[in-house]
Amino acid sequence: MTNIYNNKKIRVGIVGYGNLGKGVELSVSQNHDIALVGVFTRRNPKTIKTLFKSTKVFSIDDADAMKNEIDVMILCGGSATDLLQQSIDFAKNFNIIDSFDTHAKIPHHFSAVNKIALSSGHIAIISVGWDPGLFSLNRLYAESILPFGATYTFWGDGVSQGHSDAIRRIDGVEDAVQYTIPIQEAIDTIRSGEMPLLSAKQKHRRVCFVVAEEAFDKDEIKDKIVNMPDYFIDYDTKVYFISKEELHEKHSKMKHGGFVLRSGFTGQNNNTKHIYEFSLKLESNPEFTASVLTAYARAAFKLRLEGAKGAKTVYDIAPSYIYPGSNSKLRKEFL
Amino acid sequence: MTNIYNNKKIRVGIVGYGNLGKGVELSVSQNHDIALVGVFTRRNPKTIKTLFKSTKVFSIDDADAMKNEIDVMILCGGSATDLLQQSIDFAKNFNIIDSFDTHAKIPHHFSAVNKIALSSGHIAIISVGWDPGLFSLNRLYAESILPFGATYTFWGDGVSQGHSDAIRRIDGVEDAVQYTIPIQEAIDTIRSGEMPLLSAKQKHRRVCFVVAEEAFDKDEIKDKIVNMPDYFIDYDTKVYFISKEELHEKHSKMKHGGFVLRSGFTGQNNNTKHIYEFSLKLESNPEFTASVLTAYARAAFKLRLEGAKGAKTVYDIAPSYIYPGSNSKLRKEFL
Repeated sequence: MTNIYNNKKIRVGIVGYGNLGKGVELSVSQNHDIALVGVFTRRNPKTIKTLFKSTKVFSIDDADAMKNEIDVMILCGGSATDLLQQSIDFAKNFNIIDSFDTHAKIPHHFSAVNKIALSSGHIAIISVGWDPGLFSLNRLYAESILPFGATYTFWGDGVSQGHSDAIRRIDGVEDAVQYTIPIQEAIDTIRSGEMPLLSAKQKHRRVCFVVAEEAFDKDEIKDKIVNMPDYFIDYDTKVYFISKEELHEKHSKMKHGGFVLRSGFTGQNNNTKHIYEFSLKLESNPEFTASVLTAYARAAFKLRLEGAKGAKTVYDIAPSYIYPGSNSKLRKEFL
Repeated sequence: MTNIYNNKKIRVGIVGYGNLGKGVELSVSQNHDIALVGVFTRRNPKTIKTLFKSTKVFSIDDADAMKNEIDVMILCGGSATDLLQQSIDFAKNFNIIDSFDTHAKIPHHFSAVNKIALSSGHIAIISVGWDPGLFSLNRLYAESILPFGATYTFWGDGVSQGHSDAIRRIDGVEDAVQYTIPIQEAIDTIRSGEMPLLSAKQKHRRVCFVVAEEAFDKDEIKDKIVNMPDYFIDYDTKVYFISKEELHEKHSKMKHGGFVLRSGFTGQNNNTKHIYEFSLKLESNPEFTASVLTAYARAAFKLRLEGAKGAKTVYDIAPSYIYPGSNSKLRKEFL
């Protein structure tokens, strides 16, 4: 096929084959200027069953030897355990994209990856996805354009992996799924042009579906959940005990989404109201996040072609870089 | 004040002092890293009453002599009559921003301005605002991330200047205001995850408030409106005849807004649905558009500091350029 990179496809690899890695495998198949070289796993490659039969699986230990066959490595590990180390390791030999989403540690992660990528001559785009990612972009656009006002981010309704994990760590909990649900009244108030001060409880509520082990007291588990510091104590939390079967049947989907809203003001007396709103409603959080990663893999490739290097975030990437066509087509058809 | 440009403020000028120019005057006052040098007008400067007493007014003929005092000239003329020529003229001596919004002529305008800006060593960001502008960005982000799907743009409800002007050109019409109103059912259908094929009539309806001259037949005027090719014939159009006083009293606000929606699909059988939505609800179209222009004036200044030149659009500008703070602050507080 013809594209703007001298008729070549962008060759990507996937590191880690969980839900996110599978999402990238699917996403690459939708992008005709991108080709998947293979999946790199810490497990025994022979035990991995990929979604597409044609997808090759390699040991993660063989990745470095294939550095000349891969333009961008898409890292699909978790923020808690994998990415802080993997992004640094892979940026030595590859252009990389990661979805590092521990907000408080982003500055540290950026510096660490930047140092390696600058010295190895690669591009490393970190914290790509929808939050951090598209939501971050909208917070920036909204506030830069309307400096007077207030920005609100709401998540859900959708499953919070962190909160579900926190419940699972309680003694007597066999499994659990936690939904974060935005408070509709709060969103409506902001949409009407108000700038309310909202507590955590006024923005989101939490609903937990828990599978308890027989021998444990449910009231005690419930108490531990609703009073858990950081995670639940500041929210209205509902806890439902259900069977393992029901949990798998009804709560294994990975839908998510949310809103970024800015209520802003202009005018001589700052009395002209504007509402800026961005929202996502996603049936699959990992499949959508993977689609954002794939689009930014294209940007990493284009940036590297131009000689850029070092760590980047979505803020540093001109939007045209994620588009598969030419800039003149873009101006003609999208502007 | 301290900022990232060596403690200097960005010095901007405004060319043209209509609603948009006034909006920029207001917007600059909200941005502490930007200073307004003055307004440049084709009228006699002595006849101009600015919103702020401190705003200086100059003749447009004196602009070139002040080229060393202005970092970015913000062009606030109209697309139909002014910008095709003014952007070229001013790009000879200034970095410029314009809001050129005649979609079909953007490629031509880009080339013409690019040629001048490259040879004069300036930055010229064209077609800045919300559509073209923020809506264009969202069409790009949505489609690049979700290549399978359909994107829809809805405008309104708000006043269309072009349609109002078209009515005013009819014999016997003294004044008129035309509202473009999106069809709620169409938006709801897309939000539910459908990808309907929508005709013009199924996306928007048009409501016209018309002041007719005594001597003319209202039914005839109405016929001419609803059957006007390009503007009205493909839509459900309602026409109301009202008095001059009522038009001024009830229909002189310049509210506008709209939606960009993408219904996209991922997954092995493309059966995972995602809804991407961006919307604006603006009490003043010119004040908001002006706020976008001011933010991109900052980007023009930063780009020029780095040595960039030539014509650009919002697609070519990394988001961080419109932000007044440092990139590390941005990563820490917004990502």
